[in-house]
Amino acid sequence: MPWIACLALVTACTESPDKADARMKAEADAARPLIEAQMARYSRGAAAGNADTLLAMYAPDAVVMPPNQKLATMDSLRARFARLGPFQVSFATRGLTVNGPVAIERGVWSAVMSPPGAPLAVVRDGKYLAHWQRINNQWLMVEHIWNDDYQPVALP
Amino acid sequence: MPWIACLALVTACTESPDKADARMKAEADAARPLIEAQMARYSRGAAAGNADTLLAMYAPDAVVMPPNQKLATMDSLRARFARLGPFQVSFATRGLTVNGPVAIERGVWSAVMSPPGAPLAVVRDGKYLAHWQRINNQWLMVEHIWNDDYQPVALP
Repeated sequence: MPWIACLALVTACTESPDKADARMKAEADAARPLIEAQMARYSRGAAAGNADTLLAMYAPDAVVMPPNQKLATMDSLRARFARLGPFQVSFATRGLTVNGPVAIERGVWSAVMSPPGAPLAVVRDGKYLAHWQRINNQWLMVEHIWNDDYQPVALP
Repeated sequence: MPWIACLALVTACTESPDKADARMKAEADAARPLIEAQMARYSRGAAAGNADTLLAMYAPDAVVMPPNQKLATMDSLRARFARLGPFQVSFATRGLTVNGPVAIERGVWSAVMSPPGAPLAVVRDGKYLAHWQRINNQWLMVEHIWNDDYQPVALP
């Protein structure tokens, strides 16, 4: 092998910013359907009132940040879902940045909730950021925060 | 140069998961003071009621997601800060993941707000995720979402 071939090989493995952009874009394209499938699984778990399905998309040490309450562990999240009962929720990804095993997803959500014993159903829309990591070849949420698009309103 | 040396060079540049972890940890250590300095700048801008200082830490096309309202552009954010007037806010980083030019910061915030004309001051605590990118050698927020730790309460 001539010297020049060795040099070319070594040069090829240092990534230029342009190359990094292209790689990250390809990684986002590859991760998108997998992450969307995880969010769809969340929706199915919520509709069925199945906390296990919901929680399976979080890493065991995930930090979950619901609005208007302190941050949740997996245990308090399980209690929260039990309290909420089954509910309708859908998600749509609006932005996805991936670099290797790390992904940041931005999205919107929409939910109809009728917690057991609540006097009326609540229709909510909002937005979220989810920090995903590829762990054992599966994308799992390690940090998740969301909030609402609207202030709660008094009955007319 | 023997073949083996060329092979060693090429092998050295493919990053093992362990190497990636160590690199990302070093990158987070390097980014942390820079990102904390940006957040401190935000606090100074808020205290002075200086929207320019506040907004300088966002990328021009940043997506900002305040609670209980729709997502904000730089223009609507400027209007929001004008409406709020000067306010006290502090931030503390609780988690930081960095991979190359991409960072995800998790933190908590605490604010005292007395918007012009408001009948009483509001003390708020909450949490946030910020998606930072290193752009022209500066860390800027490209996505930022936060929410509150508590429901608004009626006066006792």
